[in-house]
Amino acid sequence: MVPAGQRVGGHSRFGMNVQQALLFLNQTIAALEYGQRPVELYEPIRYMMALGGKRMRPLLTLLSAYLFSDDWRKAVRPAIAVEVFHNFTLMHDDIMDRAPLRRNQPTVHIKWNQNVAILSGDVMLVNAYELLADVEPAQLRQVLVRFNRCAAQVCEGQQWDMNFESLATVSEADYLKMIELKTAVLLGFGLELGGLVAGADETATRMLREAGTNIGLGFQLKDDLLDVFGDQNKFGKQVGGDILANKKTFLLIEALEKAGAEEKRTLNHWLNAKQFDKDEKIRAVTEVYHRLGVRSITETKMNQYFTAGLGCLNRLPAEESRKAVLRQFIVELIDRES
Amino acid sequence: MVPAGQRVGGHSRFGMNVQQALLFLNQTIAALEYGQRPVELYEPIRYMMALGGKRMRPLLTLLSAYLFSDDWRKAVRPAIAVEVFHNFTLMHDDIMDRAPLRRNQPTVHIKWNQNVAILSGDVMLVNAYELLADVEPAQLRQVLVRFNRCAAQVCEGQQWDMNFESLATVSEADYLKMIELKTAVLLGFGLELGGLVAGADETATRMLREAGTNIGLGFQLKDDLLDVFGDQNKFGKQVGGDILANKKTFLLIEALEKAGAEEKRTLNHWLNAKQFDKDEKIRAVTEVYHRLGVRSITETKMNQYFTAGLGCLNRLPAEESRKAVLRQFIVELIDRES
Repeated sequence: MVPAGQRVGGHSRFGMNVQQALLFLNQTIAALEYGQRPVELYEPIRYMMALGGKRMRPLLTLLSAYLFSDDWRKAVRPAIAVEVFHNFTLMHDDIMDRAPLRRNQPTVHIKWNQNVAILSGDVMLVNAYELLADVEPAQLRQVLVRFNRCAAQVCEGQQWDMNFESLATVSEADYLKMIELKTAVLLGFGLELGGLVAGADETATRMLREAGTNIGLGFQLKDDLLDVFGDQNKFGKQVGGDILANKKTFLLIEALEKAGAEEKRTLNHWLNAKQFDKDEKIRAVTEVYHRLGVRSITETKMNQYFTAGLGCLNRLPAEESRKAVLRQFIVELIDRES
Repeated sequence: MVPAGQRVGGHSRFGMNVQQALLFLNQTIAALEYGQRPVELYEPIRYMMALGGKRMRPLLTLLSAYLFSDDWRKAVRPAIAVEVFHNFTLMHDDIMDRAPLRRNQPTVHIKWNQNVAILSGDVMLVNAYELLADVEPAQLRQVLVRFNRCAAQVCEGQQWDMNFESLATVSEADYLKMIELKTAVLLGFGLELGGLVAGADETATRMLREAGTNIGLGFQLKDDLLDVFGDQNKFGKQVGGDILANKKTFLLIEALEKAGAEEKRTLNHWLNAKQFDKDEKIRAVTEVYHRLGVRSITETKMNQYFTAGLGCLNRLPAEESRKAVLRQFIVELIDRES
């Protein structure tokens, strides 16, 4: 075996870095054939996939494959399956949430119409399975079984999230379970998939899944935090958006649990207010969060997940130099400000 | 090998008949675990699957498997995958078509709500893949590749069908292509799947697919015919429903193509009428169909498909006694009056 990182003709032949992987990934995505006609079916898929994003999930798959194999490129189509699946869930979630914008562009059900968004999403899920089927025959069954479980869990998470909207209160445990299903398990699967494709054993793939799930939980808590405490100059969306929408984030759930009589009155006032000054509501609720120490409670919880996730990575039976690439990628995501 | 049909303890051990297969199928469907919570996600799946239907598609898979293997029971879970997929398409089509009823019961988006119907449908598609994955590892890749193609085609057919609604005219060729995609290819896949699971060779599975696609095309033309010329006492829906809805069926497309100036005026009058007596519209349009010989044109086309499909079956390299079971099942479907 050629040592990882050995340079051939000025290029790292078997090594990998994130920039290189992202380039390869985006080239492959741009060249994908989803289908042509009818255009209403396939154009929205190209539109969604071209909206961009960090490509975090497929990159995790590639970096994870590289832990166990020099040939991480063979994980590219399965990795893109995860990205296509993720974008399928966004297309359908946007209908359900009546979201007008996605990454500052009109959502598919707005740009086309709702039926197009339903059906184009359906065929996108089929496309994800097409890409996923491109693994070695010996791994196909296990990859499918794990992906099916994960895909069903993501739907379960979305349904819980919608159910929570009509509840007066949600417990911390229920919220954590919901975000685990809705967002974290797909990161867990992303890492696991890389291991499966690269031939890692069951202990390793389980550890990868656990790592990804924990890190995914931490990422969602980070999102909840950034929405309130983010720097408006760096944060892509409006800071305070969750507060304005009365979204039951980890912060609000903690605040309602920790609140004394007065804070409860303040929170309920703003939760029930029909007409209000937006900035005033954001300021008042943020003030309560500060008073109750909700920020540090959330940061502590978030860091527990990151520590648990990175701990799983550290224990993986793989070369330290390869784990370092994956670890650095994750740490940069942890440190992001948008 | 024990000869097919040999009786052991009063039961046909390796033989099969449709009643027995249907019983086994329905027992397996009733015992399926789709998932439990949240109930909004999984209850609609059980609801759709319990609405019944002829179970035509999975029966075709089982009868097709029996052509090449005594162990047709091993095709049961993949066969049910086809039924679950079919019901997933119905759940989403009902949203898109704003249909209030399905088999005389409220559709899922009416009984629950639209978001439930979107998300529950999504997880139903995942369930179909779960069931489909239950084939021998050696066949999994081919089964997946074929199913993915078929599933995408069904979505394409639905999109064409929706596109046709806003067109003034549709050509016969475009209509036939649409119904091939929307309904016939799934029957083709149903038969092909039985062959794949039972280890039939590529020539045989291709022939099975061709048989199913042709028969599916014939079935759709039969549906179009029954909607106008069916016996109201036997037909489940209102005779003339397609006429009232201005649905671009094979009959209307042929009529518009064959019509002289006078018939064209009559047809356009009824197509554009905003207020009308329902019975009068049905009577008048049916009258034009009679005058133009549209019924016999459609019957001729339909019979061509049935003949082509049954011809493929006859040429299959399988035991005549086994082909007879499948052929009889199809002929009974051809002769149905509802």
